[in-house]
Amino acid sequence: MAGNTSEKLQQLRQILAEVTDLNRAAMLLEWDQETYMPAGGVQGRADQLSTLLRLSHVRFISDEVGRLLESLEDEVAGLAFESDEASIVRVTRRDYDQACKLPPDLVAEIARAGSVARPVWEKARHDENFTLFAPYLEKNVELNRRIADALGYKDKPYDALIDRSEPGMTTAELAAIFAELKQAIVPLVADIARHSEAVDDSVLYRGFDPDLQLSYALDVVKRLGYDLVRGRQDISTHPFSTGFGPGDVRITTRVSRDFFNECLFGSIHESGHAMYNQGMSTEIDRTPLWDGASPGVHESQSRLWENVVGRSLPFWRHFYPSLQAVFPEPLRGVDVTAFYRAVNKSQPSFIRVEADEVTYNMHVLLRFELENELLEGTLKVKDVPEAWNTRFKSYLGLDVPNDREGALQDIHWSFVSFGIFPGYTIGNLISAQLMEKIRADMPDLDAQIEQGQFATLLSWLRKYVHRHGRKFTPNELLERVTGKPLTAAPWIAYVQKKFGALYGLQAAHRS
Amino acid sequence: MAGNTSEKLQQLRQILAEVTDLNRAAMLLEWDQETYMPAGGVQGRADQLSTLLRLSHVRFISDEVGRLLESLEDEVAGLAFESDEASIVRVTRRDYDQACKLPPDLVAEIARAGSVARPVWEKARHDENFTLFAPYLEKNVELNRRIADALGYKDKPYDALIDRSEPGMTTAELAAIFAELKQAIVPLVADIARHSEAVDDSVLYRGFDPDLQLSYALDVVKRLGYDLVRGRQDISTHPFSTGFGPGDVRITTRVSRDFFNECLFGSIHESGHAMYNQGMSTEIDRTPLWDGASPGVHESQSRLWENVVGRSLPFWRHFYPSLQAVFPEPLRGVDVTAFYRAVNKSQPSFIRVEADEVTYNMHVLLRFELENELLEGTLKVKDVPEAWNTRFKSYLGLDVPNDREGALQDIHWSFVSFGIFPGYTIGNLISAQLMEKIRADMPDLDAQIEQGQFATLLSWLRKYVHRHGRKFTPNELLERVTGKPLTAAPWIAYVQKKFGALYGLQAAHRS
Repeated sequence: MAGNTSEKLQQLRQILAEVTDLNRAAMLLEWDQETYMPAGGVQGRADQLSTLLRLSHVRFISDEVGRLLESLEDEVAGLAFESDEASIVRVTRRDYDQACKLPPDLVAEIARAGSVARPVWEKARHDENFTLFAPYLEKNVELNRRIADALGYKDKPYDALIDRSEPGMTTAELAAIFAELKQAIVPLVADIARHSEAVDDSVLYRGFDPDLQLSYALDVVKRLGYDLVRGRQDISTHPFSTGFGPGDVRITTRVSRDFFNECLFGSIHESGHAMYNQGMSTEIDRTPLWDGASPGVHESQSRLWENVVGRSLPFWRHFYPSLQAVFPEPLRGVDVTAFYRAVNKSQPSFIRVEADEVTYNMHVLLRFELENELLEGTLKVKDVPEAWNTRFKSYLGLDVPNDREGALQDIHWSFVSFGIFPGYTIGNLISAQLMEKIRADMPDLDAQIEQGQFATLLSWLRKYVHRHGRKFTPNELLERVTGKPLTAAPWIAYVQKKFGALYGLQAAHRS
Repeated sequence: MAGNTSEKLQQLRQILAEVTDLNRAAMLLEWDQETYMPAGGVQGRADQLSTLLRLSHVRFISDEVGRLLESLEDEVAGLAFESDEASIVRVTRRDYDQACKLPPDLVAEIARAGSVARPVWEKARHDENFTLFAPYLEKNVELNRRIADALGYKDKPYDALIDRSEPGMTTAELAAIFAELKQAIVPLVADIARHSEAVDDSVLYRGFDPDLQLSYALDVVKRLGYDLVRGRQDISTHPFSTGFGPGDVRITTRVSRDFFNECLFGSIHESGHAMYNQGMSTEIDRTPLWDGASPGVHESQSRLWENVVGRSLPFWRHFYPSLQAVFPEPLRGVDVTAFYRAVNKSQPSFIRVEADEVTYNMHVLLRFELENELLEGTLKVKDVPEAWNTRFKSYLGLDVPNDREGALQDIHWSFVSFGIFPGYTIGNLISAQLMEKIRADMPDLDAQIEQGQFATLLSWLRKYVHRHGRKFTPNELLERVTGKPLTAAPWIAYVQKKFGALYGLQAAHRS
């Protein structure tokens, strides 16, 4: 690089560092709000967050950033695509253009709409009264259309929203993938339902001391590779992971005496997110590259550890003896296979966040379809509950008893955020697509897991995924690592094989 | 106020709100650093803090603030001195001028010097090697002189530094007060030393379960009036209180199984600070008025609750039965009077932060004298240990065994902060000066305390001290409330009476 480039890049990095610091401070304020903040702090915290995020936004969309990007784009043209320098310029440009395309009035209106709709959504959900919430969802649909118009799109308005959260992905690409999923999973779900008695998960409800669950979960994630010198675990209502830089990436979890899965699998899930952040190259710290490639890729890391590793038989062959030592009473008379089967029970249920591996993507498919139709105008807001319930019956075979357990369950529609849900399914698919490649590279993976050795797996993920941060789009990353863009086949094969075996299904569904 | 004034004031308040939000976010980052942050977070946190504080400083010293102040000063001229509007303009002007007078280069040099000196001080203290630290203290002295020159002063350079932390106070005023203290306390300390066997505090070292201590302390401060809906208690190495606005003012404490005083009196001390912030008018929130009138006035609130209330016999008449119920073993055979005497044992010791009520101010006097002489050039840095030890012997009768327990004990001299120490003594004096007036207004105070009723006392403090925040300087506040500026007499009378009785001393020392 020419000396001149270095100097301009230095200037850009300084601004980006400042923007990152403001955002990270805001993230700590949010972490605190979910973990330790006293109730009285709500109003003051809202003020502080709004100030920090406004200052960060203003600084980022400044003309200075635009000018620096322009001259840097010429100057990094000769550098390798994957070099830090070229990637910082390329990804910052993408963020910058998107941020600048949204008029400040629209941004303010979105923020306002969200804070107005949130309490109404809470009341509507509590009262099981969709009509109360409908006008706010109308507004949300309108604002999402305006966002799509401001950002621009070639084909469908949803393209703009998808591209914003999963860069490079299109509605058509996702629609094809969801169609493939629907075709494979709906019959699998029905088949499992016919054999539901094959798996008994009653052991999970026998009562597990909460403090012991918390310390056991922390011990497990530490052994998976979550670095507690650069992290910690706290309690919050909704578990999450958040990172304030390479040296401080935290997880939260929750714990229920009456249901075992919540704490341990919640902790493993969040540690999967956290290990992603802990594995990012420090060279890209305090730049827009220091984050997950997309919410979907981030979710692939949490799902890989939670489900593909944490709900596998080799994993439990390793951990079950120590779990039994900690919880001798509730686990009495339950052997490792029975326990492995219990934590994998699949059963259609109404609430997305409680769904099992097999049914989860059907919840997402439903929302993907409804969001699209709302945006296109082919579905009216007032008809959402009926559309929800009809499709729910068709995909998962259940009659939705009320909107609290149906169309009102997610917080997402109370703020302006269409295009987020697909990330959850993308995460599931990527976890299986990566795992296919990992198994090819590490034929003894199961043996390693059974011996409690996770370092090679984590190193693989660091090398091929973590360290790059946002350098590559999801499909760029997948093509580099697996030779293919996002595909549903590995995940379908994975669940058909795993659940076919668990439920003793016909091979027809397993091919 | 004219509509125009309102609009300009609105503009000023908006900038001040933004500055406050940045500062409060920084304070949360600091709170987190002391309580929960993993070790790996140090470097990232330093970056974030530096960004937030720089942005807050730049925003505050902007020309816009200067212009708004100028036009507002004319416009609030007709308003009452104590009105929110006039006070915001007046106090913001004071802060603004001080902030603008310090050249950015000097500010940067101060920050750099502090971060360079800190680890050297730690090593020097650990190694008991003053020579190692001497060059950094030289630099500190030089920078303090440059601060004084930049801020300006009439009489002595120390005036500028004192005025910066205790607005309106002068070196001469403090020197006279310290002289009075020295004359009264040195003989009292000597007299107590001759009767040291009169008070037995061995009960405090009998072993108290840490968790029970923490919950007991939290219960006590709640009953004093610390509002936990707007606060919380955590653990940190050095206890502190910090407020992010009227709805969120937190305390930290520490706990030792082997020494009872640390946790409970630490919690009461910090809750005194916290109740001050919780009592500030919400009308002045997000302005420079929302804070203590000075570090000294802030300390008066913590000392009043910790010592004047919390180490009083009526206080223990109320609380001792419940304390005995929580700790039956260590308190067996110790009656309330014996316990009251134990928590009040006075004994010269080397470390300021562990000093008792009587000896504490002598530690401060020593530092006040040395800082002054260093600034004036009448004391050389290399001679500090000798000067320290000689004076320590003369004020407290002890031979300092090494510089770790002498001139190297405080962190303060590792950053640039002369003029801070006097605030601790000012706090002690104000607590007694206020209490004299409180007793005149509430003749049944002791009876109320003995019944565990603290609401009237807290209301009094809210009305006369808390709600005003920084509206008045320390002496303005004292003159309004007690009719006099800062005076040592009430505190001297208080300790002579209390410790004269505790140690059975001659009345000569008690007049």
